[in-house]
Amino acid sequence: MAAIADMIAQGTVVRPDGRAADQLRPVRITRGWTQAPEGSVLIECGGTRVLCTASFTPSLPRWRKESGLGWVTAEYAMLPRATSERTARESVRGKVGGRTQEISRLIGRCLRGVVNMKALGENQIQIDCDVLQADGGTRTASVTGAWIALADALKWAERHKHIKNAERALTGQVSAVSVGVIDGRPMLDLPYVEDSRAMTDMNVAMTGEGDFIEIQGTAEHRPFNRQELGTLLDLATKGNKTLQTLQRRALEAEPGQMVGSTGAEA
Amino acid sequence: MAAIADMIAQGTVVRPDGRAADQLRPVRITRGWTQAPEGSVLIECGGTRVLCTASFTPSLPRWRKESGLGWVTAEYAMLPRATSERTARESVRGKVGGRTQEISRLIGRCLRGVVNMKALGENQIQIDCDVLQADGGTRTASVTGAWIALADALKWAERHKHIKNAERALTGQVSAVSVGVIDGRPMLDLPYVEDSRAMTDMNVAMTGEGDFIEIQGTAEHRPFNRQELGTLLDLATKGNKTLQTLQRRALEAEPGQMVGSTGAEA
Amino acid sequence: MAAIADMIAQGTVVRPDGRAADQLRPVRITRGWTQAPEGSVLIECGGTRVLCTASFTPSLPRWRKESGLGWVTAEYAMLPRATSERTARESVRGKVGGRTQEISRLIGRCLRGVVNMKALGENQIQIDCDVLQADGGTRTASVTGAWIALADALKWAERHKHIKNAERALTGQVSAVSVGVIDGRPMLDLPYVEDSRAMTDMNVAMTGEGDFIEIQGTAEHRPFNRQELGTLLDLATKGNKTLQTLQRRALEAEPGQMVGSTGAEA
Amino acid sequence: MAAIADMIAQGTVVRPDGRAADQLRPVRITRGWTQAPEGSVLIECGGTRVLCTASFTPSLPRWRKESGLGWVTAEYAMLPRATSERTARESVRGKVGGRTQEISRLIGRCLRGVVNMKALGENQIQIDCDVLQADGGTRTASVTGAWIALADALKWAERHKHIKNAERALTGQVSAVSVGVIDGRPMLDLPYVEDSRAMTDMNVAMTGEGDFIEIQGTAEHRPFNRQELGTLLDLATKGNKTLQTLQRRALEAEPGQMVGSTGAEA
Amino acid sequence: MAAIADMIAQGTVVRPDGRAADQLRPVRITRGWTQAPEGSVLIECGGTRVLCTASFTPSLPRWRKESGLGWVTAEYAMLPRATSERTARESVRGKVGGRTQEISRLIGRCLRGVVNMKALGENQIQIDCDVLQADGGTRTASVTGAWIALADALKWAERHKHIKNAERALTGQVSAVSVGVIDGRPMLDLPYVEDSRAMTDMNVAMTGEGDFIEIQGTAEHRPFNRQELGTLLDLATKGNKTLQTLQRRALEAEPGQMVGSTGAEA
Amino acid sequence: MAAIADMIAQGTVVRPDGRAADQLRPVRITRGWTQAPEGSVLIECGGTRVLCTASFTPSLPRWRKESGLGWVTAEYAMLPRATSERTARESVRGKVGGRTQEISRLIGRCLRGVVNMKALGENQIQIDCDVLQADGGTRTASVTGAWIALADALKWAERHKHIKNAERALTGQVSAVSVGVIDGRPMLDLPYVEDSRAMTDMNVAMTGEGDFIEIQGTAEHRPFNRQELGTLLDLATKGNKTLQTLQRRALEAEPGQMVGSTGAEA
Repeated sequence: MAAIADMIAQGTVVRPDGRAADQLRPVRITRGWTQAPEGSVLIECGGTRVLCTASFTPSLPRWRKESGLGWVTAEYAMLPRATSERTARESVRGKVGGRTQEISRLIGRCLRGVVNMKALGENQIQIDCDVLQADGGTRTASVTGAWIALADALKWAERHKHIKNAERALTGQVSAVSVGVIDGRPMLDLPYVEDSRAMTDMNVAMTGEGDFIEIQGTAEHRPFNRQELGTLLDLATKGNKTLQTLQRRALEAEPGQMVGSTGAEA
Repeated sequence: MAAIADMIAQGTVVRPDGRAADQLRPVRITRGWTQAPEGSVLIECGGTRVLCTASFTPSLPRWRKESGLGWVTAEYAMLPRATSERTARESVRGKVGGRTQEISRLIGRCLRGVVNMKALGENQIQIDCDVLQADGGTRTASVTGAWIALADALKWAERHKHIKNAERALTGQVSAVSVGVIDGRPMLDLPYVEDSRAMTDMNVAMTGEGDFIEIQGTAEHRPFNRQELGTLLDLATKGNKTLQTLQRRALEAEPGQMVGSTGAEA
Repeated sequence: MAAIADMIAQGTVVRPDGRAADQLRPVRITRGWTQAPEGSVLIECGGTRVLCTASFTPSLPRWRKESGLGWVTAEYAMLPRATSERTARESVRGKVGGRTQEISRLIGRCLRGVVNMKALGENQIQIDCDVLQADGGTRTASVTGAWIALADALKWAERHKHIKNAERALTGQVSAVSVGVIDGRPMLDLPYVEDSRAMTDMNVAMTGEGDFIEIQGTAEHRPFNRQELGTLLDLATKGNKTLQTLQRRALEAEPGQMVGSTGAEA
Repeated sequence: MAAIADMIAQGTVVRPDGRAADQLRPVRITRGWTQAPEGSVLIECGGTRVLCTASFTPSLPRWRKESGLGWVTAEYAMLPRATSERTARESVRGKVGGRTQEISRLIGRCLRGVVNMKALGENQIQIDCDVLQADGGTRTASVTGAWIALADALKWAERHKHIKNAERALTGQVSAVSVGVIDGRPMLDLPYVEDSRAMTDMNVAMTGEGDFIEIQGTAEHRPFNRQELGTLLDLATKGNKTLQTLQRRALEAEPGQMVGSTGAEA
Repeated sequence: MAAIADMIAQGTVVRPDGRAADQLRPVRITRGWTQAPEGSVLIECGGTRVLCTASFTPSLPRWRKESGLGWVTAEYAMLPRATSERTARESVRGKVGGRTQEISRLIGRCLRGVVNMKALGENQIQIDCDVLQADGGTRTASVTGAWIALADALKWAERHKHIKNAERALTGQVSAVSVGVIDGRPMLDLPYVEDSRAMTDMNVAMTGEGDFIEIQGTAEHRPFNRQELGTLLDLATKGNKTLQTLQRRALEAEPGQMVGSTGAEA
Repeated sequence: MAAIADMIAQGTVVRPDGRAADQLRPVRITRGWTQAPEGSVLIECGGTRVLCTASFTPSLPRWRKESGLGWVTAEYAMLPRATSERTARESVRGKVGGRTQEISRLIGRCLRGVVNMKALGENQIQIDCDVLQADGGTRTASVTGAWIALADALKWAERHKHIKNAERALTGQVSAVSVGVIDGRPMLDLPYVEDSRAMTDMNVAMTGEGDFIEIQGTAEHRPFNRQELGTLLDLATKGNKTLQTLQRRALEAEPGQMVGSTGAEA
């Protein structure tokens, strides 16, 4: 972390929103934002706002039936006007785009990485992450919010006797954050203006133990070396720790009560 | 209105949520709920919550080009878990359902009914109504909220010199409300539990002058006669007046400030 | 009806085809126009020509199974060259348009409104309305013709012991007609030239008792008030009575025999 | 032809409808059956009834533009209840089936085979063949009827100065008929009951000069040899001659007037 | 055959690749080209290269279940860059084109024509013909190669006890070849340069006994007469005989070993 | 690398195909495997066989026009029977699956990472990677093979004067390889049997300089820590070096000549 600390110390990093290179944007999490789903979380990371819901169904898709194992799947989508330019609806275009599918699959894998499918039993949890407003980091905010919705859905399932033990079904915590290299400098939690200028862009999902569930680093605009990778992973580790503290606080709060951080506290 | 007044006087009508037959559910309207769109309104009617956005584009779809006239169109959709049972995404199913298209077309016609296409000029406004939570009356809430977003988008276009005069482009107000006959009794503003039991179901969109833009009455379960129609239209007229007062108050409020009614005041 | 009578008396209404404001176009109905379907009716209303067939299946769609109730559904479509300009096939475009779906749903609701689903038993009737030539009022002609095909299919089902009692399954008659306001004047049964100029356009489906099953009024071009609504409903009532007389005469005629009216007799 | 003549002479061939092996079913052709299209023909071959329309457009699909050549294309479709069992609409299924496309392409090739694309100029003719009732031989009836609609559309285009010379644009006549081997015996013009039992099934499109434009023979159920092929082509030649006489008579008749043959005259 | 022999004798026919009018292009056949399928054949006819695989499944599609009969079906496709211009993928376009479906159906019919469905039992064989490089005659090469893959899959099924007798299930041999008329001269086995100039184009699938399974002749550019048809069928008969010899030799060779002909030997 | 060296030294790692943990499978690369494309490479990595083609078009997709920059895009697909069980064609299912899109996007990003879009000019290169046989590592083999096809297409474009300087357009080399953790042990280049058992699965694309272009690590089955990540990246670095040597040798070889490695030499 020395490198970033140095940069900050030298005052050379000026981010458009005044943040330090290793600082998250303000985060706000509201559980129970809608009433129907078994888990429903509105997560806001800076200008990014995602509604994450978890739907519990006491049955399985056909291909998984009679396996004795549960299933967790996720779908990500954006409202047409979550972005500064309106995007055509995928329903109207008649097909789900590659980016959407890629992100849906990423969210699904992250959550399955912390679920004990045997303890979930022959039940399915469907995660929906709908981006109401997009300002960078929508996929990582989705993972972070969805994990809380998932935890709520498992508790609901325990209360309603669909599963025996919600804690055994959820083997750990998972959150995700984006990091990137901008003008040669590693940064944590990129908003849209930074993301679109990033040479390297990496999404890192980590468990509560600090292990990796997903690393997706892309350097279409300039390859990165082993050392840069190290710094990026340091930043991601720091960001995910803060997010995981917030996740736990949100689960302890009342439904409807907002839990937040200014991004500067850690 | 005598019939309803009598019923209320006789205390015979007991609605699940304690409302009188001619009473709206609580309404809450927040302008500027998201930042990107030229108009963005969160409207809540009881448990129904719809995000209505208006996107202004200084160009037209191909078929309308060089007509000297503008265009207003609308798309309605529901988040998968807006309902008590999860609904599969239309993007994933690869096609937009009949109900969705029917409602999108209804919203579009209602708004076009109060727009002067010449004054709008060769510009397009796309309305998106995304139901975040559904508890009956989603299409009428969409019309009511979308009109405010439309008004905001026109003012934005005037400020940005895309159109000369927002007031001339918007020839009037439009709101909509549902009415229905339940157990033989006409009722205003049906939540889901009532809607699913209604013998007759009618959506009525009206202008600020109290004229009709759309009447869609359906009696799959029991035909209705001319007198019942009269009572239903009385109820709709009353409901739309209240909604239109709220629409005007919302336009006078600051963006982000919520404007509301308990449903009981009128 | 005074208003219309006055207008006619004053000779001020000149319709392109010489009809009075309250006069239907010539109607011709031929039962058994094709041999395969359980019910098959060619209905012609002026230049509009629709082939309505009813297909009886002694089974149900999956979602309706084991309900003890039957189901009636409808699909409307237009041949590509039913219109003056060729329309691309929806099969080739790969999706069913919003207008098509809206009309299919309308026809289905109208017919279900006069069917006793219990008496129909666990059977399905699929109505197909294919417009061979379009000159306004295709959806209302479809409802009117489809009801006859439905009646025939129910009688077929009774003869073939699929249902016990066709009369109990069909609780009443339903027909539909369009009305509209043109140049400020309410008119019955609009052909295409009038329809495209109509400020208000309304489709009214009524039972044999004169009650309403569907009212769909749209005033994209100029809102209408309560009084105009009254006149339009008077016209629709008159038109539907004539159509229902023809429906009954058609059912009494031999298959293949054409039953007609000049539109002037009522 | 000796073989067939012999069989007929021996009285050994008994077809379900009493026809001789080399006899067509009754044919009825009505030009101008609908008013909108530039060419509109209802052709009935026994129980098969196809509406063939030709739509003239004074422009070309993009890929053909600026070639100096015209284009003729065809689309074939069946109404859902043209058959004894209802077939799901291809628009509803969201894709055009293989059989439909195969037949559409066949019809297009047959018609293009008798059109001088240079004389047609940069114009397009779209043929639509919609089967209203199906009883075998729908694709061959489509070719035969479509040629008449094409001829009418070309005359319309000449009258409206879109092309100079309709006769030069149409280089010849084309008709088509099915032949097949049933229980080892070659037969002309198979209705559905025969078609479904045929071991070999062949569709033969011929010009007025008796040359072949298309031969499509299929022997999924029993291969055929060179001699059988000869007999089948003899039968097809005979049938096409009769059909071509009727085509010419239809073109000389008034629009709306039916031209027919009992199938036995030739 | 005199006509062609004469032409060759007179040295008047000069084909771009130096072949005689009745000569096949060099053919190369490699069985077992990939390991996973039950039958896998790479067939090369001149520049055309098709990978034909046969997948055996001990179950049937739903519509065929409990018939006591097996099923054989085929799918044909082209890699995007099998052709000199890249063709967009049908998966990306979201639908299978008419040409593709037509060819898939042709291949399926040809193979079903030599399979005893009773002896195949309630099993399905799916043939896939993927064109890796296209230079004319891809559909006929597919039929020829697919038959070998089919034979291998049947032997596999016998070895694995899914069927009793592979020889009884395969009632005969089938191969196919293209013929055409170019500049008035009948030719065997057209490469792309010839095919695109052909006035008449015919694909002929024949059994080992020399009978026809499919004849598809198309003369969009100039009709052909009975005599030309005769010459074309002579050529096709000759070509198919050579191909069938190669098919038998391939089946006798070791998997992975290439069997070939220069096209000149017969 | 100590850890792996130790494991190998201790002889504890036994891979199903006898390889050491840090050893690639045998690789074979054939340039010019098909003739039509501007670049065409068959790459075989163990049992995985992918045909990579590069199509050069001297024009751009609409959204990129007039940017002065070129574009490189990629599409990945599998033949239905590349796998041990037949997979339904995406063209037949009517949509491209999420996995396919994800991989197509990955390949595109990797190649764009080594292309100078300015030097490419307003031209497009479309990469197609079609898996003929799949045995793990299809996406990484695609990247490795596609880079060679891309290099050939750029040289073709230089020869044909579409671009000035192929070397300037290609800023470097890129190859990719998979690594994973199996039974707690990091391994290089996983075939299907290993891949399906891997707890962690990572695809690493690297430049000739040893920098990263893409890292995609997924640990659905067991999270991985920083140290394991280090070992995996060591393995990937070693594998990519060998692959890049082969890529260069392949570019120096004659078209059609196979270049290979046993996987053991490095």
